[in-house]
Amino acid sequence: MAKGNKRSKTRASLPVVAVTMGDPAGVGPELSLRILTESRVLGECVPVIFGDAGVLARVAERCELPRPSEVIAIERLGRPPALTAPAVMDLKTLDAAAVEPGRVSADCGRAAYKYIESAIAAAKAGRVAAVVTNPINKESISLAGVGFPGHTEIFAALTGAARVCMMLASEKLTVSFVTTHVGLADMPGQLSRRRILDVIELTDQALTAIKGHRPRLLVCGLNPHAGEHGLFGRREEQELIEPAVADARAEGIDAAGPLPPDAAFLPARLAGADAIVCMYHDQGHVPFKMLAFDTGVNITLGLPIVRTSVDHGTAFDIAWGGKADPTSLIQAIHWAVALAAGR
Amino acid sequence: MAKGNKRSKTRASLPVVAVTMGDPAGVGPELSLRILTESRVLGECVPVIFGDAGVLARVAERCELPRPSEVIAIERLGRPPALTAPAVMDLKTLDAAAVEPGRVSADCGRAAYKYIESAIAAAKAGRVAAVVTNPINKESISLAGVGFPGHTEIFAALTGAARVCMMLASEKLTVSFVTTHVGLADMPGQLSRRRILDVIELTDQALTAIKGHRPRLLVCGLNPHAGEHGLFGRREEQELIEPAVADARAEGIDAAGPLPPDAAFLPARLAGADAIVCMYHDQGHVPFKMLAFDTGVNITLGLPIVRTSVDHGTAFDIAWGGKADPTSLIQAIHWAVALAAGR
Repeated sequence: MAKGNKRSKTRASLPVVAVTMGDPAGVGPELSLRILTESRVLGECVPVIFGDAGVLARVAERCELPRPSEVIAIERLGRPPALTAPAVMDLKTLDAAAVEPGRVSADCGRAAYKYIESAIAAAKAGRVAAVVTNPINKESISLAGVGFPGHTEIFAALTGAARVCMMLASEKLTVSFVTTHVGLADMPGQLSRRRILDVIELTDQALTAIKGHRPRLLVCGLNPHAGEHGLFGRREEQELIEPAVADARAEGIDAAGPLPPDAAFLPARLAGADAIVCMYHDQGHVPFKMLAFDTGVNITLGLPIVRTSVDHGTAFDIAWGGKADPTSLIQAIHWAVALAAGR
Repeated sequence: MAKGNKRSKTRASLPVVAVTMGDPAGVGPELSLRILTESRVLGECVPVIFGDAGVLARVAERCELPRPSEVIAIERLGRPPALTAPAVMDLKTLDAAAVEPGRVSADCGRAAYKYIESAIAAAKAGRVAAVVTNPINKESISLAGVGFPGHTEIFAALTGAARVCMMLASEKLTVSFVTTHVGLADMPGQLSRRRILDVIELTDQALTAIKGHRPRLLVCGLNPHAGEHGLFGRREEQELIEPAVADARAEGIDAAGPLPPDAAFLPARLAGADAIVCMYHDQGHVPFKMLAFDTGVNITLGLPIVRTSVDHGTAFDIAWGGKADPTSLIQAIHWAVALAAGR
């Protein structure tokens, strides 16, 4: 889908993309090392890992991967001479020798947060074109006293974004979410005509930037059969979703719905749509994981900066093991470059 | 999956299966005609259509299909000589000449209900081994003053079943449901440890009957990430689902869960499971339709009789058009025969 940024560029004109190392005890360090020498990445950007060089050195040895050739201090980023080679921004947040792979710890949570914070600061200052994140561990973040449940909330808070939403993108299916990390019983209360319209607008803007044309959006209903004309549910389709779709269409957005959720993801439907707007986490995550497991990209829409992420967790069970698959990270970088080019 | 009933049988010993004609204005009549000459059906049962011979005659002419060769009155069913040929049980419920294909009407709703009622009576009396249903139109049923939202509720009421649940079955995926036709906002309130255990037990019983061995069941959580240790939701996983799974395991049922819903339907998980127990309609319908669109079978578990159904609607847009695909009906008959043999 992300076919933007087709112009051929000289090495010096490639965008610099910050890649956070993620939780030091997870698969993030190994994935970071892998993309530093990955031709699909180096052909479209200059990746700079925001992390700890000491951890990367240990992981490189364990996984028999090359050590990063360039390690720099954050002050140098963006100053002449311009960055033209893949590098590690060494934030020196922890004692690398003390990190145990696959282990929850406050130190790792604190470090992971620091990488994100620094990468966001670099993006806000215009020193990087986009931020791509490796996975963090919610428990470690929480132990470190970071009061956010996940990346999206951190990015929204640190950039002061008024409205954001999550989008999952892949070649086969792209979905965006009106609600995400909220219990099912509390989720319907978070739906509003305004929020649904926000997510339709954000999805339209992002895909227009990436594709260079207005996308075709399908919007899911909330209830079984999209409520079957009010038979099931509390008329959320009639009172919230239909009006939001009408508002969007009045703005010139090509949106249709609400559709019965179990009809929205049939191949014939997907073939005619650029993205599906979902009301809740599993409405979109179940089909997305089925179609794009481990190759999907998580994109935060509505930020003043570009942010994409891998669509998998820290995978503690295979951390530092040399078996981590960088496909999702490579895709996340690809989408980040396309989004940055479309701005 | 349905590999039961392998014994070779003489024609006279094949089970008689009642097939309701469904809404006369939908695709049910055409599908009924098609299976009367379908070798995959005739090899394993004697199908008897519960419907209106006058409607079938009109549809046969329109679709250029053979007219049913045997038309009988309900009183003859099950009396000597035993039924050994496909037949139509002519219930004469409406004026066939007045039926308009693709049109909602009280007369058609009333007729469709009568077919179901008669087939259930025949099954309760032991005159047919199973009931397989063609689709009905909810609006027509409602216009006819039938106070049930769908087939499942009719079967439960007319057979006095204490606990029933819906199961969707296919070669690729089988799912059963703790709740179905209820709005998302009201759904969590319908979950209980007892109801979840009921559905696990009913699924175990049905699949044991069909497969001849105890199945492996996976149980979904309710909330995103199955609540992530209570982080999302109202602890439904800890307080309802985990205890129900433990109860089931204590009874010898091979059940595991609760799983994060977006992990339950990954190919690697499905390969190791016979069925997935779902908390709500779209949790199971979205992946099921993606994997088994138009070939799935809807089975009502917990009834004193065997009932299966096609997994599609009346398809008014193609009614009486000669283009209806009988795959789902053929599968529904196949599963009905397997379930009847396993009793």
